[in-house]
Amino acid sequence: MERMYTLGPEFVDVTWGAGGAQSELTLQICTTAQSVAGLETCMHLTCTNMPREKIDWALKNAKEAGIQNILALRGDPPHGHSDWQKIDTGFAYAIDLVKYIREQYGDYFCIGVAGYPENHIENPDPEADFRHFIEKAKLADYVVTQLFYDCDIYLAWVDRVRAAGVTIPILPGIMPIQMYGGFKRMTTLSKTRVPAFIDAALEPIKDDDKAVKEYGVRLAIDMCNKLRAHGQKGFHFYCMNLEKSVRLILEGLGFVAPIEVAKPLPWNPSLAKNREKESVRPIFWRNRTRSYVLRTESWDDYPNGRWGDSRSPAYGDLDGYGVSLKFTPEEALKVWGTPKTHQEIYTLFAEFCKGNLSALPWCDNMAPESESIKSPLASVNMKGFLTINSQPAVDGIPSSDPRVGWGPKNGFVYQKAYVEFFVSPEALQKLIKKLGENPYITYYAVNKQGDLKTNVQAEGPNAVTWGVFPGQEIVQPTVVDGMSFMAWKDEAFELWNQWARIYAPGSESSKLIQSVSDTWFLMNVVNNNYRDAQAIFEIFN
Amino acid sequence: MERMYTLGPEFVDVTWGAGGAQSELTLQICTTAQSVAGLETCMHLTCTNMPREKIDWALKNAKEAGIQNILALRGDPPHGHSDWQKIDTGFAYAIDLVKYIREQYGDYFCIGVAGYPENHIENPDPEADFRHFIEKAKLADYVVTQLFYDCDIYLAWVDRVRAAGVTIPILPGIMPIQMYGGFKRMTTLSKTRVPAFIDAALEPIKDDDKAVKEYGVRLAIDMCNKLRAHGQKGFHFYCMNLEKSVRLILEGLGFVAPIEVAKPLPWNPSLAKNREKESVRPIFWRNRTRSYVLRTESWDDYPNGRWGDSRSPAYGDLDGYGVSLKFTPEEALKVWGTPKTHQEIYTLFAEFCKGNLSALPWCDNMAPESESIKSPLASVNMKGFLTINSQPAVDGIPSSDPRVGWGPKNGFVYQKAYVEFFVSPEALQKLIKKLGENPYITYYAVNKQGDLKTNVQAEGPNAVTWGVFPGQEIVQPTVVDGMSFMAWKDEAFELWNQWARIYAPGSESSKLIQSVSDTWFLMNVVNNNYRDAQAIFEIFN
Repeated sequence: MERMYTLGPEFVDVTWGAGGAQSELTLQICTTAQSVAGLETCMHLTCTNMPREKIDWALKNAKEAGIQNILALRGDPPHGHSDWQKIDTGFAYAIDLVKYIREQYGDYFCIGVAGYPENHIENPDPEADFRHFIEKAKLADYVVTQLFYDCDIYLAWVDRVRAAGVTIPILPGIMPIQMYGGFKRMTTLSKTRVPAFIDAALEPIKDDDKAVKEYGVRLAIDMCNKLRAHGQKGFHFYCMNLEKSVRLILEGLGFVAPIEVAKPLPWNPSLAKNREKESVRPIFWRNRTRSYVLRTESWDDYPNGRWGDSRSPAYGDLDGYGVSLKFTPEEALKVWGTPKTHQEIYTLFAEFCKGNLSALPWCDNMAPESESIKSPLASVNMKGFLTINSQPAVDGIPSSDPRVGWGPKNGFVYQKAYVEFFVSPEALQKLIKKLGENPYITYYAVNKQGDLKTNVQAEGPNAVTWGVFPGQEIVQPTVVDGMSFMAWKDEAFELWNQWARIYAPGSESSKLIQSVSDTWFLMNVVNNNYRDAQAIFEIFN
Repeated sequence: MERMYTLGPEFVDVTWGAGGAQSELTLQICTTAQSVAGLETCMHLTCTNMPREKIDWALKNAKEAGIQNILALRGDPPHGHSDWQKIDTGFAYAIDLVKYIREQYGDYFCIGVAGYPENHIENPDPEADFRHFIEKAKLADYVVTQLFYDCDIYLAWVDRVRAAGVTIPILPGIMPIQMYGGFKRMTTLSKTRVPAFIDAALEPIKDDDKAVKEYGVRLAIDMCNKLRAHGQKGFHFYCMNLEKSVRLILEGLGFVAPIEVAKPLPWNPSLAKNREKESVRPIFWRNRTRSYVLRTESWDDYPNGRWGDSRSPAYGDLDGYGVSLKFTPEEALKVWGTPKTHQEIYTLFAEFCKGNLSALPWCDNMAPESESIKSPLASVNMKGFLTINSQPAVDGIPSSDPRVGWGPKNGFVYQKAYVEFFVSPEALQKLIKKLGENPYITYYAVNKQGDLKTNVQAEGPNAVTWGVFPGQEIVQPTVVDGMSFMAWKDEAFELWNQWARIYAPGSESSKLIQSVSDTWFLMNVVNNNYRDAQAIFEIFN
């Protein structure tokens, strides 16, 4: 989702899983896309085998999550039935679902419907099929079509649809060819017409997966360009969770997301309705956005413009959402091994900084902007300061900078150098002494038990990322805040426990990691002199 | 008051005028010092000839203005009486006033009383006099003494006072000698003892006013140093509205106000109780602070941290407080003459920028920080862009900088270049066209009738002064805000009318100035690229 975000889609689709756990999962993915990743989300909803209560439940939850787009579908036949069957209190066709949503929610939802340029495969009567589609489209807000590979068929169909009086936007469904076998199976099953030139081009390369993928990208670019020449403005890509081909297609088409739209803030703003004005967050959860969104979901309002007095609302308990590793124990063992000395742990952290380890319990990947400091960070880790979050100093770089820029054009962005790490009590004592020599350094350090050490005297938060833009107040979207740090430390220490748990109780690795969790401190350090990029690393010498 | 502020006094005193209009004036001066200049103010209050209702009125108004310090005095005998007389419902001695204030206001007021190291002149019984003083001092919070020139007398008296069990601070009253004649008259009248060495030093220079003043400064420095050697920490200077000698004395003593205390913000924060959190103001009233404070006095709360949504409260009408020149018509004629052409007006504005004219209707003196741009500003005025407010660009200068610094130490301050001026409709049209070439420029222009031209699209204000400090959010105390500009323009245009009124109706000067007021525009321009100090002047070429 993070990677999709950078492509700047108008919206993303999540298909509907009709089963019980599947429906829950769909809603959860939609909510995450909308609230956590900040992607405008369209939730698919089918009426096959769906009692009215289930549809009510789905729509209610979608609305609560801030989702405003529904693709209303009839859906596939239930498993084991070759044919679709109407169930009691259910709906016969997608149009019934469209009508029901309008009846219940008026204009709240933007409702899409599916179009079939090559006719709906189950329908033996193409004319009746078309009439039903027109009827449905006249009640909807937009159309997205089934995939196709013959642009002429699509264009002719659009002409017919327009002639029938349908004026809403129509998005052609483009599915990049990824694998020869899959492509053949799918087009055969769905009876999709494949022009002879495509077959001819694929035949000689069908056993070369890479060449097939490359051809798929070129074909999609050609198709989109042909449709654009006929006035088509938007496209719907069937990514099937693989975004690479789509990224290459967008680049080939010259669809580069403008920086203002792609990155209004250094983090992706949530699109949940109640968070629409939120514009400030603590830096601590930068690698755990979902946890931040969940632990603050009960807040009445969210910090807007500055963190200010918003510190009073409490953070949700860890119990409320659960802290867990993103790996299974088996995967984790493979990545992190069985460290038996502190030095082996230092090495794991250092390797992560260098890009040689895919993840740590606290972070999945280094922020691209930290690329510039990965070498000094790795050294810091080898000295036993185990970093889990950091940002380099930025002294007024244009807001259009591809690496650290954000916000409207013609602005300048700033960052105070920040580093957050675990540290042994002995090293902490020496470090605090050394920090006393630099009047620009502020810090907080706390252990699992909550013993806090800080040199911060002001009550409010410290803005560590801000931007200056034409005609605006200063935008300050990221802060270091003492109260928030205390809420974050529980989560940060719990991840050590989770790590310890992948080893047998009483084993050397388990005891080592548990002892770090029990005795070390979590510390964050800000160099308030953002004009000196190196000083923050010198404190560790 | 502005100049006093820069000396960093703990508080300033305003003497009590017992008559009707005089009392009103005292309160008005106190309120201005406290609310407008941001000086902690001590209001004197006498009980001579004062009915209880008058004292109630004075205390109530002082409290409402945020004043927390009262010097409780008996006061001089009413005019025409050589002796003091108690009036009905009045008070006999200062101690009665102290008791009454405590009874009515508890500990709200910090109450000072007067001490007389050489005994109170009216009292023939020095012992009784001392006993009464001790009784009074035991109910008060501090003592300030009558002026004296013999430090030994003061020091001996303090010892006696301490021996009698009085522990509150005692401030010696130091009055720098300004003129020989005045000094002699005053010390004779008040029977103040003058040590022989002072008379001996003054005698040979008594006709040289400058030499007397210089001696007065040296003497005061010597006295203060002697008292410091005996443990004295604070001093009370009788300035008599002349601050130059006191400034020289403070410099001689090495009492330099620390920058953090002297300038917490680029403008002096008000000390009115309801404004204690106010930390943002529009730039427009920078030279008319009193008007700003009065026109916003009905606001329920004041912008704190950022201007934000605080724009909704309305500004008070011009009628409410009256716009007037600080000169009498005679003084104004002397300074501004009788301009008969636009060019003569341009010259007046240019001469003001160069420091050759003491004031314009919109401003009394150039801000010291504008010193660096006075030459380009003068050229701009000669071209017919009549500037009334401006600030140079500042790109991250240390907060300790004596010229543009403010706020806590180890910070950096910034300013966007700003210039505000009157411009003819013809010149405005050309200028707006030229401004379109620079994407960093934002502007508002409006005429008396309220026709607004702007290129600002965002709704919020533009922060034009801000500071970045260790461990804090960004402080942004000065903004350009469209709504506030509309309130300000009425005042800015009214000052042209006031100027026109010093000339005979129908005279050439009156008609010229009135026509500028009726047809020209008031415009403000911000260069949002604060890293380019010169560009704002280039737009006028």
